[in-house]
Amino acid sequence: MASPVVPQAIDSGVVTRVLDEVYTLCRTEIGGAPADYIPELAAVEPDSFGLCLATADGRVYSVGDTDIPFTIQSISKPFTYALALADRGVDAVGQRIDVEPSGDAFNEISLDPVTERPRNPMINAGAITATSLITGRDAAEKTERIVRCYSRFAGRDLSMNESVYTSEARTGFRNRAIGYMLRSFGIIDSDPDEAVDRYFRQCSLEVTCGDLAIMAATLANNGVNPRTRERALSAALTERVLSVMTTCGMYNAAGDWVTTVGLPAKSGVGGGILAVLPGQIGISVFSPRLDEHGNSVRGVAACRELSQRLELHFLHVTRSARTAIRTEYSVDEVPSRLQRNETELEVLAEFGGRARIYELHGDMLFAGAERAVRTIESRAGELDALVIDLRRIGDLAPIAVTMLNSLQSELAAAGCQVALVDPDGKLGHDISSLDPSDPRGRVFIDRDGATEWCEDVILERHGPPSEPECTMVADHPLLAALPVDARAELTAEFEPLTFARGEIIAEPGTPRSGLYLILRGRVRVTFVGSDDRTHRLVTLSSGMSFGEIPMLTGEPFVNQVRAETVVRLAVLKPQRFDEIAAQRPDLGLALLRRLAAGAYAQMDAAVRAIAVRGGDY
Amino acid sequence: MASPVVPQAIDSGVVTRVLDEVYTLCRTEIGGAPADYIPELAAVEPDSFGLCLATADGRVYSVGDTDIPFTIQSISKPFTYALALADRGVDAVGQRIDVEPSGDAFNEISLDPVTERPRNPMINAGAITATSLITGRDAAEKTERIVRCYSRFAGRDLSMNESVYTSEARTGFRNRAIGYMLRSFGIIDSDPDEAVDRYFRQCSLEVTCGDLAIMAATLANNGVNPRTRERALSAALTERVLSVMTTCGMYNAAGDWVTTVGLPAKSGVGGGILAVLPGQIGISVFSPRLDEHGNSVRGVAACRELSQRLELHFLHVTRSARTAIRTEYSVDEVPSRLQRNETELEVLAEFGGRARIYELHGDMLFAGAERAVRTIESRAGELDALVIDLRRIGDLAPIAVTMLNSLQSELAAAGCQVALVDPDGKLGHDISSLDPSDPRGRVFIDRDGATEWCEDVILERHGPPSEPECTMVADHPLLAALPVDARAELTAEFEPLTFARGEIIAEPGTPRSGLYLILRGRVRVTFVGSDDRTHRLVTLSSGMSFGEIPMLTGEPFVNQVRAETVVRLAVLKPQRFDEIAAQRPDLGLALLRRLAAGAYAQMDAAVRAIAVRGGDY
Repeated sequence: MASPVVPQAIDSGVVTRVLDEVYTLCRTEIGGAPADYIPELAAVEPDSFGLCLATADGRVYSVGDTDIPFTIQSISKPFTYALALADRGVDAVGQRIDVEPSGDAFNEISLDPVTERPRNPMINAGAITATSLITGRDAAEKTERIVRCYSRFAGRDLSMNESVYTSEARTGFRNRAIGYMLRSFGIIDSDPDEAVDRYFRQCSLEVTCGDLAIMAATLANNGVNPRTRERALSAALTERVLSVMTTCGMYNAAGDWVTTVGLPAKSGVGGGILAVLPGQIGISVFSPRLDEHGNSVRGVAACRELSQRLELHFLHVTRSARTAIRTEYSVDEVPSRLQRNETELEVLAEFGGRARIYELHGDMLFAGAERAVRTIESRAGELDALVIDLRRIGDLAPIAVTMLNSLQSELAAAGCQVALVDPDGKLGHDISSLDPSDPRGRVFIDRDGATEWCEDVILERHGPPSEPECTMVADHPLLAALPVDARAELTAEFEPLTFARGEIIAEPGTPRSGLYLILRGRVRVTFVGSDDRTHRLVTLSSGMSFGEIPMLTGEPFVNQVRAETVVRLAVLKPQRFDEIAAQRPDLGLALLRRLAAGAYAQMDAAVRAIAVRGGDY
Repeated sequence: MASPVVPQAIDSGVVTRVLDEVYTLCRTEIGGAPADYIPELAAVEPDSFGLCLATADGRVYSVGDTDIPFTIQSISKPFTYALALADRGVDAVGQRIDVEPSGDAFNEISLDPVTERPRNPMINAGAITATSLITGRDAAEKTERIVRCYSRFAGRDLSMNESVYTSEARTGFRNRAIGYMLRSFGIIDSDPDEAVDRYFRQCSLEVTCGDLAIMAATLANNGVNPRTRERALSAALTERVLSVMTTCGMYNAAGDWVTTVGLPAKSGVGGGILAVLPGQIGISVFSPRLDEHGNSVRGVAACRELSQRLELHFLHVTRSARTAIRTEYSVDEVPSRLQRNETELEVLAEFGGRARIYELHGDMLFAGAERAVRTIESRAGELDALVIDLRRIGDLAPIAVTMLNSLQSELAAAGCQVALVDPDGKLGHDISSLDPSDPRGRVFIDRDGATEWCEDVILERHGPPSEPECTMVADHPLLAALPVDARAELTAEFEPLTFARGEIIAEPGTPRSGLYLILRGRVRVTFVGSDDRTHRLVTLSSGMSFGEIPMLTGEPFVNQVRAETVVRLAVLKPQRFDEIAAQRPDLGLALLRRLAAGAYAQMDAAVRAIAVRGGDY
């Protein structure tokens, strides 16, 4: 549904302003110090500070030092874990790495005493295990696959900071210890040195705050990079990785983080933090001063401020489940554009309330579907037919599909027929023609066709046998109501005319060619809207007329008139019409009086339909 | 927005079917054993099993033993924590109870070595601390307030199982130890025995699976009990309690729970589990057999199955942020119901594209607002005016209000005027009248009024000086286009007529009273829809006419016609009209020809508007 084009705005004032305020506020946080266990990390400008907010469709708002490269460090953990899950599968990985939050420090040299596994992939033991699970012909390819994976998330080719890597590799004794401990417990069954070395390399990859924003947006966008449109991770694995980030992402400050920020996130000792509001927003911060947990001081402060000011907490409640039904009305309130003869109109006026249209919108997951189905069912008892219009539905969860299909069959069994407007086949039906007897079921490409079908159901059940096979000219309503003499004389003026199915009777620009009475069949009147699409203006059937405007104004046709079936017409040619008007004004008067009255009545009905349909009061 | 009435359905087949399937599947889980640290708990029927799913609006689906009372036990913890937060405030409670997940067992006799606080309110130490913080004159009142709090969530008066309480109180040495430890660290500064005794009492309150479902639905419904409509907890505290349940609710199986179920939840050794999808769903399960963590075996299995089958994981992504703009169109595609004279129509046909209507819908939090504002801004450069219709917005977050208000002023400064349709004053503006010069700003109660205002802006900027102060009868378009003689003769037949502002000119049922030409001012034509509301059919101004249908058909008026301003009219009385038609058919013919042509042109425009507005192609 969502267009792939990202509208590039005149900068959206408020978002930028909020980012600036948060930035200014958090700059005053001067506590903490950069990591200094290796000189390269200690060498950074401690007060550099960058902040980005990216939308799930790839718009990035930035403030501060968002282009300074720094090493990704522990923010690499969720991405390597993701790659391991993709390479080995959820179960195989689960046998080696648990997903439980740990009260311990991130670099604890210990496993869970009960499970004898690393507690989660966000502590070093779990991360090194994940790194050891990456597949590839040799060490080089395994590392290369990690780099390519991160680069897909970032949307550009990332590279390594060699000096940081060298330093980490030279001094990372504790991680080597963890590597050998994992090997001794059989959690790693390959060479632990190789796994730890690869871990040092992944931690030494350089990103900017802007890169992290796109990586976060990719996680927010269900695993698809919104800039490159490339899928970096499956939706299911994205959900799993975000789950682990939720409980384990912020070391042992996870609980406070969930309570006060409420976003799945990961931080690194390089000073970066990445946070995600699934489906909506990605946030990234860079500021090297760290707190006692190893999280960026300004990063935590900035995320907290943004979450509160923009209400980004992932448990923040919306009522979207309650707005699945966009609007509803009955066919007597909003009739189809098929013009009915007077008998039909009477039946529809009396029984039209027994057929309702339900327009749904938004994404439909379980709760929204339950509510919509329940609302529709609650009225179905009084209905002969109903239409469910799905054209404005975005995501439609499989469970919602099941519920709607089951609703359709349940109600049909209870005597209420259900039509779907589902041009994209969201429910997996074929599209039927407008012919209500179509055996493939009641699925339409537009609501108007479905509404017309509803009216037919009502007419079948409550109306007299439908329109006569063919109308005689004299019996046409336009003439039938005239005084006897006038009627006879005018009838003689009309000439018979027949068009084959699909034949064009008039095009935009066709000069006035007569006043046409329909004796049999249907004609379809269409126009091309400013959206360059063809809209149905109206479908006319036996007993109706067209060509009035050109005839009365002398202007050419503005719409296309096409035979929807074989059509038998009677036409009064312009020349004769003018002669009659001149020589027998009484006849012309009688005819025009009928035309004008009919026109005003139709206009009245049309405008009423807008008033109700628009819900505008 | 959501109606307070809960539609009571013909039972919604699919939900019941899924519940039955999950129930049948999980019954085969026969592992684990009921808690047996006291005889009363061991005495339950180990294989009893109940399962409920409740919607945020209070519909409950049930299967199995959902009416068997059992003791709430640890499920009481989030509710007492909630009451403590309400009694003492978030900060005061935060100084005594942390919110960090703990790797320890729930009944560990220890505090966090660093903070010297209980790690979270879901382990016994934290729960007993929360209980000690409840306010009240004396022990009895404090307990009473806890019972009343739980009862508000459940929607009925809960009572205590005395024998379970007595047994717990007699044997709960470990909890007493925790109480004294808390006292020794000064976390509890009152009598620890009293706090622990109250904790035993709250754990001994009896609930059914059905009660837990409503308690869960109340948390899902932002703290308001959907059955009683009573607020049990503020929205902000509800969010906080759910956050803590997310990371700490399932003892030390929290991580696995978040990954595989993904719902804030709490379990109790009584065999109950309560889970919440904020804003949407509450789930409750009762089955006494417990796993090694103390969670109900079937409860965990059932929640996992339901979450997967119904896609209830709270990180599951929807695209709702992308569907905030329901539909958009320009005023030349969908004009207001104010009928314009021909000059105005030409201007609007040429420049109408420079005024657009944006209809928003759904709940609008930050991400949705950002997207909508960005989309609108991206076109504003080409526009003179635009309308933002907020009538179908549900929740409107404060940040979204700020963004919309700021958009309005930014665009106005850039030369694009913005009107809001906001009858409920969601943006905190006054409602202005339909008079575009109203100083209180551009806020309308209906879209049609706003559209009319947009057209006025276009006409001001691109049109000639607007309608003449007053039209002479002979200059009225209906007569102006006639042949000179006819025009002169007919003009003489019209009589002047004036109505005061607000005066009623015709009512439904008023017999045909003439053909009315408007020379000055505006008349408003309204009808009462099947929704019993009054809709504006059209507003007519100088140069237009009404009364045609009654005049031509002889039928009485079907709409109300009221003077919107002082109105000067010229009327042709029915009797004269008939005499003219009879004696001077040429005159009548000329007049009718104009009427009919005008009527058809208007109908054509009206139906085009439906076609575009309905987006139906």
